[in-house]
Amino acid sequence: RMLRRVLCTVLFMGALPSLAEVSQGHISVVLLGATGDLAKKYLWQGLFQLYMDQVSSGHSFTFHGAALTALEPGQRLMFDVLKKLACPPDESPNRCAVLKDQFLKLSQYHQLKTAENYTVLNREIETLLRQEGLKEAGRIFYFSVPPFAYTEIARHINSSCRPPPGAWLRVVLEKPFGHDLESAQQLAADLTSFFREEEMYRVDHYLGKQAVAHILPFRDQNRQFLDPIWNRHHVERVEIVLKETVDAKGRTSFYEQYGVIRDVLQNHLTEALMFLTMELPANVSRAEEVLQCKLQAFQSLRGLDKNSAVLGQYQAYAGQVQEELQKAQDYISTTPTFAGVLIHSDSLRWEGVPFLLTSGKALDERVGYVRVLFKNRAYCTQSETLRDAEHSQCKAKQIVFYIGHGALNTPAVLVSRNLFRPVMPEGSWREAVGQSDLHIFGQPLSDYYMYSPVKERDAYSVLISNIYHGRKDFFITTENLLASWAFWTPLLDSISHQPLRLYPGGVENQHLLDFEMESGEVAFTLAEAVELLNPNRLTPSDYRTIQSKFRQSPLVSAWSEDLISQLASDIEKTASRTVARSGQFHLALSGGSSPVVLFQRLARHHYAFPWKHTHIWLVDERCVPLTDTESNFFSLHNHLLQSVRVPYFNVHPMPVHLNQRLCVEEDRGTDLYAKEIVALVANASFDLVLLGVGTDGHTASLFPKSENGLEGAQTVVLTESPVKPHQRMSLSLPLINKARQVFVLVLGKGKHDITILLSRVGHEPKKWPISGVSPSSGQLVWYVDYEALLG
Amino acid sequence: RMLRRVLCTVLFMGALPSLAEVSQGHISVVLLGATGDLAKKYLWQGLFQLYMDQVSSGHSFTFHGAALTALEPGQRLMFDVLKKLACPPDESPNRCAVLKDQFLKLSQYHQLKTAENYTVLNREIETLLRQEGLKEAGRIFYFSVPPFAYTEIARHINSSCRPPPGAWLRVVLEKPFGHDLESAQQLAADLTSFFREEEMYRVDHYLGKQAVAHILPFRDQNRQFLDPIWNRHHVERVEIVLKETVDAKGRTSFYEQYGVIRDVLQNHLTEALMFLTMELPANVSRAEEVLQCKLQAFQSLRGLDKNSAVLGQYQAYAGQVQEELQKAQDYISTTPTFAGVLIHSDSLRWEGVPFLLTSGKALDERVGYVRVLFKNRAYCTQSETLRDAEHSQCKAKQIVFYIGHGALNTPAVLVSRNLFRPVMPEGSWREAVGQSDLHIFGQPLSDYYMYSPVKERDAYSVLISNIYHGRKDFFITTENLLASWAFWTPLLDSISHQPLRLYPGGVENQHLLDFEMESGEVAFTLAEAVELLNPNRLTPSDYRTIQSKFRQSPLVSAWSEDLISQLASDIEKTASRTVARSGQFHLALSGGSSPVVLFQRLARHHYAFPWKHTHIWLVDERCVPLTDTESNFFSLHNHLLQSVRVPYFNVHPMPVHLNQRLCVEEDRGTDLYAKEIVALVANASFDLVLLGVGTDGHTASLFPKSENGLEGAQTVVLTESPVKPHQRMSLSLPLINKARQVFVLVLGKGKHDITILLSRVGHEPKKWPISGVSPSSGQLVWYVDYEALLG
Repeated sequence: RMLRRVLCTVLFMGALPSLAEVSQGHISVVLLGATGDLAKKYLWQGLFQLYMDQVSSGHSFTFHGAALTALEPGQRLMFDVLKKLACPPDESPNRCAVLKDQFLKLSQYHQLKTAENYTVLNREIETLLRQEGLKEAGRIFYFSVPPFAYTEIARHINSSCRPPPGAWLRVVLEKPFGHDLESAQQLAADLTSFFREEEMYRVDHYLGKQAVAHILPFRDQNRQFLDPIWNRHHVERVEIVLKETVDAKGRTSFYEQYGVIRDVLQNHLTEALMFLTMELPANVSRAEEVLQCKLQAFQSLRGLDKNSAVLGQYQAYAGQVQEELQKAQDYISTTPTFAGVLIHSDSLRWEGVPFLLTSGKALDERVGYVRVLFKNRAYCTQSETLRDAEHSQCKAKQIVFYIGHGALNTPAVLVSRNLFRPVMPEGSWREAVGQSDLHIFGQPLSDYYMYSPVKERDAYSVLISNIYHGRKDFFITTENLLASWAFWTPLLDSISHQPLRLYPGGVENQHLLDFEMESGEVAFTLAEAVELLNPNRLTPSDYRTIQSKFRQSPLVSAWSEDLISQLASDIEKTASRTVARSGQFHLALSGGSSPVVLFQRLARHHYAFPWKHTHIWLVDERCVPLTDTESNFFSLHNHLLQSVRVPYFNVHPMPVHLNQRLCVEEDRGTDLYAKEIVALVANASFDLVLLGVGTDGHTASLFPKSENGLEGAQTVVLTESPVKPHQRMSLSLPLINKARQVFVLVLGKGKHDITILLSRVGHEPKKWPISGVSPSSGQLVWYVDYEALLG
Repeated sequence: RMLRRVLCTVLFMGALPSLAEVSQGHISVVLLGATGDLAKKYLWQGLFQLYMDQVSSGHSFTFHGAALTALEPGQRLMFDVLKKLACPPDESPNRCAVLKDQFLKLSQYHQLKTAENYTVLNREIETLLRQEGLKEAGRIFYFSVPPFAYTEIARHINSSCRPPPGAWLRVVLEKPFGHDLESAQQLAADLTSFFREEEMYRVDHYLGKQAVAHILPFRDQNRQFLDPIWNRHHVERVEIVLKETVDAKGRTSFYEQYGVIRDVLQNHLTEALMFLTMELPANVSRAEEVLQCKLQAFQSLRGLDKNSAVLGQYQAYAGQVQEELQKAQDYISTTPTFAGVLIHSDSLRWEGVPFLLTSGKALDERVGYVRVLFKNRAYCTQSETLRDAEHSQCKAKQIVFYIGHGALNTPAVLVSRNLFRPVMPEGSWREAVGQSDLHIFGQPLSDYYMYSPVKERDAYSVLISNIYHGRKDFFITTENLLASWAFWTPLLDSISHQPLRLYPGGVENQHLLDFEMESGEVAFTLAEAVELLNPNRLTPSDYRTIQSKFRQSPLVSAWSEDLISQLASDIEKTASRTVARSGQFHLALSGGSSPVVLFQRLARHHYAFPWKHTHIWLVDERCVPLTDTESNFFSLHNHLLQSVRVPYFNVHPMPVHLNQRLCVEEDRGTDLYAKEIVALVANASFDLVLLGVGTDGHTASLFPKSENGLEGAQTVVLTESPVKPHQRMSLSLPLINKARQVFVLVLGKGKHDITILLSRVGHEPKKWPISGVSPSSGQLVWYVDYEALLG
């Protein structure tokens, strides 16, 4: 066979390693999709680079291109690609020519279509090795094929092409790895049935970009400088950006399914984000430690919702989709080709620091960078014009990992000179001098220490080298992948019907895609630009809040989002007025799921809320420990209290857990709470009580036919719920009716029936406890969303 | 008499108001110190301006210059000044000449030295008014005299020169108004015995600077734009600056007593600060409302300490003092001529926003400004070079009240064009176009909307007009003055022996006076510069922390500040290690005053502390409600808990207040606490217990000869303190000795004797409870400062 002859020739040529030297064993590389675009552009070149780098490593190699095409045409196609392999500029032309010749001889094409094909391939490898007396070191299978083909190929490799015991198997997978959390889990589960975790190398080629790959080493080698400043006290913001000038033309069949978030943000930019935000493991080259820190960093990310992102689509996209996918002229695509996303981490290190991830097609320039901007903490006494400009502490301070293209047109690490002179590994990065007149991020290049790679290497050749070395930290593990999808999927779901801003493309975009942050959300700065009309339904803001009457009391109604924002600001107004009048504000809050959104809104948007003078009371509580996730107080704490500054003394959880037991009558928790109310709240009249309504008409923890709490003198009562946990503590109806204001919040379609019912019935608290809410001298207001009101 | 003749002449000249028109009554202005510097430079000109402006107001005027000088030479000196009075450029020369002539005739010199002199002056005014049949409107006494003369003059005016009932008295006082809180209170008390609050007009001529005077009106007229952004979410920092090029030469006898903080920051810059930070009253022209808001704003300011300021002295100052004040060659002045002070407000609006107040002599330029810099919240997608520069949201956003001099050389209000176009009062401010090539605060002038006064007016003429109009909101009330001194005095006390940075003066200062913020403190950015050696004592950092043994346990000793910082970081290290090991950290803290500094340090410097996983326990508590200022928990809450994020559930105050009563045995609070400890702390073994030592050798609330807690099985006990409040709750010695680590903190000279004693005695807990601290399997470390150790 040809392969055998080639290998022998190569092995016995003078300039090459002797048999003794190849005692490390033989490596077979199988490139699936050997004649595809990615293989043509990067992978064969990467494999050739691997061969050049490792020819004297003690390993011998064979390279097996594979595809569905039949042998003859496949061979021809593949060798057309191989003939064009380039010699890197730092390699001597002679050596390269010899090595290229060898590489061609060591490469062979296979048709891999049927199970039989895989068995044959396996037999060929075994035969060769036996004949040459070579030990097998391992096999690399590189999947450069569409994801729908993964499972089938994986099954064949697993059943027919596993190397013998003692040799390793490495399968290399290319994105996309699913479309959302569920599909990614499915794909991961499929693959896991064929391969062990350590056998899978999921490529994110960004991890092979030299500037990205250097983020962790940089943080590690510069700990002495970064330790004091790599935190929320010093970092003002972080920008992680990949801008492209090209558009999706010719690729819309892929792009229309994925869009910019799945294509760039969920993988490439998220990985860079993790390298920046994760706690630094003691040893940054230990993949397991890095992974653990990364997963922890994912846990700290605050969840995204549709207000976390601004989305755009270049104007020509719709036409391209119509043409390429044969859609009708009025087809409207909701696929974003531009996204700006604001991400927050709730870790102590990063709390409050905005991380802005931006990417788009048809933008003004091609560039990728990770920019860490530090706060300006200095005051420079000397006037600017009279100041010696060198090293001024008043200049911007930044660290930039410049991924490539753009004005610099090279990967680089830039550190402002007024920060520190970084430690860089001498062999691989060298100090560079840029064009003196170039400005990068508002500053002349001379303001930075700038380093560029000694040897600029293509991402794929870096990654292929890492596969060879088994450096799993350069690849995406299953856990990592699923953590990323778990983070992005809620955003992807919530924006699927979001309107997109149309942009002309290129330099003409001007300020159209600028966006800004406000209270943890983002919005385009130019409000007046044309927006693509949302094809599905009118958005809440298309309606105005309705003010009317419900059960003879004022009714506020809107889409739930607007309703919550109205309610939150009404509560704040009441609080401010009450504090101005009496110095304190007694607020009693209900449990359940509806108020959660309200709590979050209060926590994030109402900075002027007089928390310092607010007392927080519970309307009702489940008889579980306060730290139980079922506890109303626990939810209140998580979504509101931990984010605001209510003094400890002003927080009044219900005493459901006394003497290490729950709601035991003789512990007299109800008495205790009643006494606390009397001691602190004037006339036991709360300033504001927030209630909800159950589908059965219950409110607080007062259920239909309840024996306690619907009437009588007792102000705090134990009750029984029809659902688990059955035991509850609750304020009584008479106490609630003493309040100065009562707001009732009703949200969602599920509440439509009870809402309609309540609109018709009178005062019948035994049947529907909520109907007994009727403040004796206070005011009652209903906040009912459209879904509850209109069904 | 001459005065009478002049007045008659003036009154009956054709072009002038008839008697009917002066029916508003007569105003006598008495300028004390009529031949002094301030009078020469500003006051007479201001009075002349008043006359020009108000000659047709319906009031008639006479102007009485007064001084200690005898009549003849005084008259001559004064009229030399008056002859030089200038006509403003916007006044017709003819009218001005006529008015100047009248003004001279209406002005008269008086020697005011003895009580008799004042009586005579009073009689003259009365006689004139009677003879002319004029009603008296009021009298203005302008004190342009040194402060030591205030009381004497005030007494004379009060006893001899008060106008008759129905006419008003306004006395105008010039700074300095005291030297610190105490002297200011004394002076205020003295003056209050002679004048009513509404009669006193304390001048801060900064309130007459047009740009400063416009801060409140600007905030008022631009509420629509400022309401959403005038807060900590949008403002990045505020700079309030007055830089001078002149030095103190010729004025050292004054300057040496006051220094830059008393001369400029305590008054001028503080007033500007208040205008910026105060809540806006509904009506900004009502002096009483403005004052109330201002006083509230003072209450919100966080206290200053020596780390709030950087201080400097220009090199020539010492020599000037030696020469002018006849001091010895080795005399070292500790008077700062430069100060940069970082101020924080704890109001909800401004929490966290740095306010930098800076002033100095012998700097590079003369300029005054108030600069509000907003946060950059935008991300501009288009590259800088391809961006249409107009109105970009990525440019800096600022509002500047430019007081005068500097590059603009005019008062001005500047608002970045990407913020909003401000509403400005048309009559008094007009849009101005500056030199196109001028850059102000890093931006070309064309980036701003710029307004300058229609008529540039000297501060004194503005103030004199305000005195005439009775606009008390332009003056400093007694309450305002004392609030300002109360704020500044602690800083002034703490820096009286601070080392100063010497600076050469002028442009050569370069970066020497640049400073930066770090954790609420400031420091010069250049560390290596020459510093004036502190003449009094070596600073803590001159010593290194001592590590040794005390009572057979490790001892850490240093000056208290270094000791606290060491202790805080040791606690953090223990916490992080413990959380890493067991997932939680149980920390028991003592009350008393020593730990307060530690709490503050932990709150402000240890962002990486694992608070989320820390449980806070009390070592001991006084039997008072938790909200009582005597409560240990209250202090812990104020200085630590309210600033960090310990979950509510992890905070464990001692239950000293059960059933609305304090430490009643049958309420079994000790049992409750003991059970809580057992339920949550593994083996009831705290991870870290922090103790103190009393001068009597007590620790926790375990006092000598205590019946409870020194031995036995009870883990939480009630004890009796020899000092009030007597009743205490405390962890017992056996429980403390179960801890994994115990740190004992001993601070201050007052603890020297007990420290020496403890170094000699053995285990005698009955006599000295602290001597019984000896963890059975844990570690004990002593943190003793030099003062306690060395006396």
